[in-house]
Amino acid sequence: MSQVSDIVADWIAVDWGTSNMRAWAMGAGGAVLAHGESNAGMGSLRPEQFEGALLSVVAPWLKPDGVTEVIACGMVGARQGWTEASYRAVPCPPVGGTLTDAPTRNPRIRVRIVAGLRQDTPADVMRGEETQIAGFVAQRPGFSGPVCLPGTHTKWADLRGGEVEDFSTVMTGELFALLSERSVLRHSVGDGWDKVSFEAGVADALAAPELVTGRLFALRAQSLLADLSADAARARLSGLLIGLELAGTRARWDGGIPVAIIGNGKLAQLYADALALSGAQSTIEDADTLTVRGLSAAYLSLKETAV
Amino acid sequence: MSQVSDIVADWIAVDWGTSNMRAWAMGAGGAVLAHGESNAGMGSLRPEQFEGALLSVVAPWLKPDGVTEVIACGMVGARQGWTEASYRAVPCPPVGGTLTDAPTRNPRIRVRIVAGLRQDTPADVMRGEETQIAGFVAQRPGFSGPVCLPGTHTKWADLRGGEVEDFSTVMTGELFALLSERSVLRHSVGDGWDKVSFEAGVADALAAPELVTGRLFALRAQSLLADLSADAARARLSGLLIGLELAGTRARWDGGIPVAIIGNGKLAQLYADALALSGAQSTIEDADTLTVRGLSAAYLSLKETAV
Repeated sequence: MSQVSDIVADWIAVDWGTSNMRAWAMGAGGAVLAHGESNAGMGSLRPEQFEGALLSVVAPWLKPDGVTEVIACGMVGARQGWTEASYRAVPCPPVGGTLTDAPTRNPRIRVRIVAGLRQDTPADVMRGEETQIAGFVAQRPGFSGPVCLPGTHTKWADLRGGEVEDFSTVMTGELFALLSERSVLRHSVGDGWDKVSFEAGVADALAAPELVTGRLFALRAQSLLADLSADAARARLSGLLIGLELAGTRARWDGGIPVAIIGNGKLAQLYADALALSGAQSTIEDADTLTVRGLSAAYLSLKETAV
Repeated sequence: MSQVSDIVADWIAVDWGTSNMRAWAMGAGGAVLAHGESNAGMGSLRPEQFEGALLSVVAPWLKPDGVTEVIACGMVGARQGWTEASYRAVPCPPVGGTLTDAPTRNPRIRVRIVAGLRQDTPADVMRGEETQIAGFVAQRPGFSGPVCLPGTHTKWADLRGGEVEDFSTVMTGELFALLSERSVLRHSVGDGWDKVSFEAGVADALAAPELVTGRLFALRAQSLLADLSADAARARLSGLLIGLELAGTRARWDGGIPVAIIGNGKLAQLYADALALSGAQSTIEDADTLTVRGLSAAYLSLKETAV
């Protein structure tokens, strides 16, 4: 069965994470012509399987003659990914400089992977978020202030004049998943929500971050002794962990400049709510839009370098 | 195949946790005549399976005529256990008062379960540790001071005049297992040990508990960027989590009275080391010995009540 497409991409943007892959057919002027995705994430692929997984999504968009360039970001460049892309050391612009070529057999594509960022002290790394930050800087040239990218491993960065000055990672999302799904708390945590419990969790964690690990088991005890609802337990757990994260990143968001939250949907809103409770302002910037914009910035910087 | 035994128990002591069951044949004078165990923990049994699991270990010790009494503590009395035993509210002696009869079909045994302890504010519960505390109080009558029972869910209690005044639970052991085995850190954490890294983790967490969740991901980054050894990563993770626990329980151990650590082996020693780094003295009390002693206290209190 042959695939038919009216779309011919000028180039192709790819965000390839651990659990899924998303691709956009880009027009010459920067417009998105088409979008496709796959659940073939980095975590489920061996190196030699990446090219096929990519082509299964983007083949219909390739130029009939010549080479279509593909710019990819994210865990595709990890040691366990397609090929290991370098890390650039902060402080530096979020993207720019050399990209890493991924090995391909099909002559109709050339795939290059955006470098991640590294920080030596304290040790930290990111892959993928630098591209979203680049997208943010593209629409706010020269921005100075804090950005927050909520997720499994939430990233906080300080930007200065559009460069990433330093950053830190907090495993809030992964801790929430482990505790709510795999710890003894799974018996007490449901699928629903309770705003008041979330806010109380944030406030308690900010006031006494050293007590949070003790307060976790109280969720179980309260559900045994006091009929704490599963909805309230889930919201309070989320609030305690986000509040603990805010306690540890206070120096980043406490300086009076609104935090640019780069995210989506409910999680981004939770961070905005938690920051508001803490007295900090924030804006929510759409992560998907910024990913495409950041990949465009990487593609353009490549063209400029080549000139 | 019939089992032959020279041992006839005056009564039988049982510590029945989530993952295993241990039983002791007790002599009239309080001596241990025999010991047996099974991996049929509460977590793997339906209520109607407990009696058979018990008899498979203790049958050889039953009196040839009449009823042998069995006193059990631990998760056997949880809602998911053999039968739900009550909780006694602190402040109260660690054991005493009514025990809960478990339903049995074999007329040669009578099984009674020690009550757990509950605390309403902040909400907390324990099942099993109260019996170890009772064993400690039996050898230190009227003790006032802090006790610590390290484990999956570490318990801290303040005793006053031999009674449990209040207590708190910190999920340090479960967090360590989840992070080292199921999170992204599993790629960086090995099986070995490094004392210096453990001590640095304790000190860092005590100095800035709010930064611990941020420091967790640094273990991954350091192993990627700086070749942090897997042994050092494991020890530092343990140190960070135990240090965070000590930061949150400071009021319990900072009063000048040595902490009675009720535990075994390496974990108990780690807590003693961490407390020493924090300037607190401690003693290590053998948990197994105290479990038997505590069950004996429960058995004796029953006899006294019956008089």
